[in-house]
Amino acid sequence: MNINKDTQLCMSLAGRPGNFGTRFHNYLYQRLGLNYIYKAFTTADIAAAVGGVRALGIRGCAVSMPFKETCIPYLDELDHSAKAIASVNTIVNTDGHLKAFNTDFIAIERLIATHGVASDTSFALRGSGGMAKAVVGALHTAGFKNGVIIARNVQAGQRLAEQYGYRWQADDRSIQAGLLINVTPLGMAGGADEQTQAFTLEHLSQAKWIFDVVALPSETPLIQAARRLNKPVITGAEVIAIQALEQFVLYTGVRPDETLIEQAAAFARQAA
Amino acid sequence: MNINKDTQLCMSLAGRPGNFGTRFHNYLYQRLGLNYIYKAFTTADIAAAVGGVRALGIRGCAVSMPFKETCIPYLDELDHSAKAIASVNTIVNTDGHLKAFNTDFIAIERLIATHGVASDTSFALRGSGGMAKAVVGALHTAGFKNGVIIARNVQAGQRLAEQYGYRWQADDRSIQAGLLINVTPLGMAGGADEQTQAFTLEHLSQAKWIFDVVALPSETPLIQAARRLNKPVITGAEVIAIQALEQFVLYTGVRPDETLIEQAAAFARQAA
Repeated sequence: MNINKDTQLCMSLAGRPGNFGTRFHNYLYQRLGLNYIYKAFTTADIAAAVGGVRALGIRGCAVSMPFKETCIPYLDELDHSAKAIASVNTIVNTDGHLKAFNTDFIAIERLIATHGVASDTSFALRGSGGMAKAVVGALHTAGFKNGVIIARNVQAGQRLAEQYGYRWQADDRSIQAGLLINVTPLGMAGGADEQTQAFTLEHLSQAKWIFDVVALPSETPLIQAARRLNKPVITGAEVIAIQALEQFVLYTGVRPDETLIEQAAAFARQAA
Repeated sequence: MNINKDTQLCMSLAGRPGNFGTRFHNYLYQRLGLNYIYKAFTTADIAAAVGGVRALGIRGCAVSMPFKETCIPYLDELDHSAKAIASVNTIVNTDGHLKAFNTDFIAIERLIATHGVASDTSFALRGSGGMAKAVVGALHTAGFKNGVIIARNVQAGQRLAEQYGYRWQADDRSIQAGLLINVTPLGMAGGADEQTQAFTLEHLSQAKWIFDVVALPSETPLIQAARRLNKPVITGAEVIAIQALEQFVLYTGVRPDETLIEQAAAFARQAA
């Protein structure tokens, strides 16, 4: 990598910067011979950080917690993916004009379509955080009418459900849904104990699709249990790879092929 | 170079970014195994750019024309090197506190001392721009009392001379000075034509020291003529190497040895 005056910088803003994006993007830049570098940042001043992105001509900026909503007042334009859920995870800077996207939303929209989950499928989703909003917003946009949000956090759960016209319940009693979605950290620690899982074996047995947004490990206990039941799955690893790919395309205009994306994602996971 | 979340970014802000700093610093980072990268930027909004340096925790920022004075209102503290000439070429960011230096001033101060130019030497200096201010300010701080500024730009030349208590004249008639200093672009194009030089052979003959701030080429026609007369010289290549080294030390806390600095400067000059 030879940085020169024409090298473009892309970056991320996160409360706690990780290595996934840095490794994913820099790996692809090197393999594709693109004159770009990628670096993770944090900030205590989101207004000045976004102002710096614009003023320094930084080409792209990934946005993570806790900046996905607080960055919005400092941007120039919201793509439908960001507007639909009032949440930004990607900023593209074109000559000082900052347009914001949500590639989590885009990834989920695409995965629902490519996996062929019909919009008349009922769903039950556990979680009420930022990523839950992206999933619920994408399902709503895709035309899913019948859904329930399961969240212990009454305020966040009710608000999310009401916003998109779904039901809310505090616990997982009497779940009947074709599509089960986990958007909580349950399963990140691994472990096969049913008490630590988002859904019980009974829930899984009656479902048609299992979607676990947890990306690390990519084979969560929930995904493993679903595979044992021969249920089709959508994994968090797919979400993270597509959302990172779409960021890459937005920043560079280059769409790498699937093999290269898988290599980049595997490389990035090694030290994420 | 493997960028990760702990990699520090240093940068430059210039109206027209070059490659010297980028190549100089990145070469040293690699040779010394420091987890830093360096990249050049320009901006149309100096306030937001400096705000971005602070908010993103960018460790260091070199400042070139036309931002050396306009950046000052947005900084937290001026070192004496920047305060003496109200001109900044280096910003160091320590946990959001921006302290500014002028390493051109520091380099000239040091070169005058290490070359043993006594402060009772009279000087004649051609030029009135930002670098002329750094040289004149450093000579003044070093105790030089007897000097003349030669500048066709009446306003800039008079102001610079008056500010530090020196004389001003518009042309090079009747120069009598032990130290001749060129701080104009004369000689950058090469060529041995005396008409394109800052000082005539007659001036050089009567002088004791010749200082040419032009760094590219490092052996300007003026320096070559001085060498033919066996006059001791101070070159722009020395200025640029020391000022870049001092920036490097301020950003990293590491002082490379002279051989490494010369290698880095030679590498940087190849594509500057």
